[in-house]
Amino acid sequence: MRDLTRDLGLLSINTATVRKQLGLADIIEARARRGIRAICPWRDQVHEAGLDAIARQLADAQIGTSGYCRGGFFPAADAAGLRAALEDNRKAVDEAKALGAPCLVLVVGSLPGALSGRPSSKDIGLARAQVFDGIAATLEYAREVGMPLAIEPLHPMQGADRACINTLSHALDICDALDPRRTGALGVALDVYHVWWDPMLEGQIARAGPERLLAYHVCDWLVPTRELLNDRGMMGDGIIELRKIRGWVEAAGFAGRIEVEIFSEVWWARPADEVLDTCVARYREVV
Amino acid sequence: MRDLTRDLGLLSINTATVRKQLGLADIIEARARRGIRAICPWRDQVHEAGLDAIARQLADAQIGTSGYCRGGFFPAADAAGLRAALEDNRKAVDEAKALGAPCLVLVVGSLPGALSGRPSSKDIGLARAQVFDGIAATLEYAREVGMPLAIEPLHPMQGADRACINTLSHALDICDALDPRRTGALGVALDVYHVWWDPMLEGQIARAGPERLLAYHVCDWLVPTRELLNDRGMMGDGIIELRKIRGWVEAAGFAGRIEVEIFSEVWWARPADEVLDTCVARYREVV
Repeated sequence: MRDLTRDLGLLSINTATVRKQLGLADIIEARARRGIRAICPWRDQVHEAGLDAIARQLADAQIGTSGYCRGGFFPAADAAGLRAALEDNRKAVDEAKALGAPCLVLVVGSLPGALSGRPSSKDIGLARAQVFDGIAATLEYAREVGMPLAIEPLHPMQGADRACINTLSHALDICDALDPRRTGALGVALDVYHVWWDPMLEGQIARAGPERLLAYHVCDWLVPTRELLNDRGMMGDGIIELRKIRGWVEAAGFAGRIEVEIFSEVWWARPADEVLDTCVARYREVV
Repeated sequence: MRDLTRDLGLLSINTATVRKQLGLADIIEARARRGIRAICPWRDQVHEAGLDAIARQLADAQIGTSGYCRGGFFPAADAAGLRAALEDNRKAVDEAKALGAPCLVLVVGSLPGALSGRPSSKDIGLARAQVFDGIAATLEYAREVGMPLAIEPLHPMQGADRACINTLSHALDICDALDPRRTGALGVALDVYHVWWDPMLEGQIARAGPERLLAYHVCDWLVPTRELLNDRGMMGDGIIELRKIRGWVEAAGFAGRIEVEIFSEVWWARPADEVLDTCVARYREVV
């Protein structure tokens, strides 16, 4: 396994981690002061700060990225909605390219309307078919542009509203169907928060291999976890076997950055400096 | 598929559904007034009301049961804890027998201490090994007594603290290992709340077959779901495809009762009569 204690060369900060404290340009500055060399920015933050400005800031300061969050949300209640989703995903691919990201992370979506509490359908099979078609269409464009797509399986507790792909196995089945030659154009973003519980995890990570493992995200699972979206833990504060899972990922050939991504009302309420310092310390100690 | 609209012959009420409104004896009376012929009682409720008294009440009124909730919680931090869990599971088997239950439902447990927020271990592999051994030992006794054991896979969001068996596939692997001849002594309790999201569900239900499908529980998954334990929905209020899943279960040969089990702060705050009337209406309409 790679040694993370010596330097921060492999560390990336997902900018959602301090999104409520700082704007994107300030996050990039706060990162620099700690020797963190990479980020994974969110789309809404980039839009707010301006794509060109952020692309220039990243290039000028030679800041790496571990991905671009996010494309996806393919299912829709009607044909116009499906078309709009594809159009938006093409834009996301272009933005990821402009930022020099290694992949566009896909949170694939699920039942139309569920995210706003008004699902127009209960047919998860249909949602999954729409996701498959949406990835296929987006992949065609992404291949032209040269932007790898990383399907992120989300925890099953987010299966109704955010992503109807909830296991690594399911994500890899889609990769095998759409990119059977393992070209690197389609793979997965593996976030320990979503997959730690899976009894098939070790074997499926090996199945993924370096061609499919496009991103690796860490945080922790708290006991108790108080709600389903914004109660992630800082690495070391929960029960995820971080070293063990990273061992499996690196044994499978993953050589990319390690991205810290924490959605947490608790950490959003603390000063950004404290959050980032803690991320750095825990990255060295427990990841 | 069986017609549920005509009578309530297949309906069972899990007594947790109105546990905050009524004691067990009163739940049994409230059930009778509606023509509901079966219940699934919880162990603490039975202990509070008295095992003998409840056994007599059930026998006198010819009330059926769809299971007994619950055994399990096998993992422990030390040998004494493991022994105590086995001892307690034997008692649960005896109690299930005294009540004439068709199966003892097993919520298998997970990381020791996690349920009280102080996990003594992060080793879910060890917890799974302890669960396997605990089921094996309990099965030996349960076979003698003649009490089938029903492993209940819980939703992965409850994987750290309540059950480290989180998919039907995983539960069936254990059944295959411990009861390869499919004698009916070991099977699963399938609760739609825990498994609806699983892309492998249909195939695994077929794999289970009538010998392994020992109990079937219904409620619904709300969007949004506000917390991880007590925010279950009444059937029809969420996004679970209840008819579709029951179709798979019955096509696989399940001929048992359909148990309504709702843990919900919302429904616990309403009058028991309203809750039970709604259960009956929704059972007829949407299950």
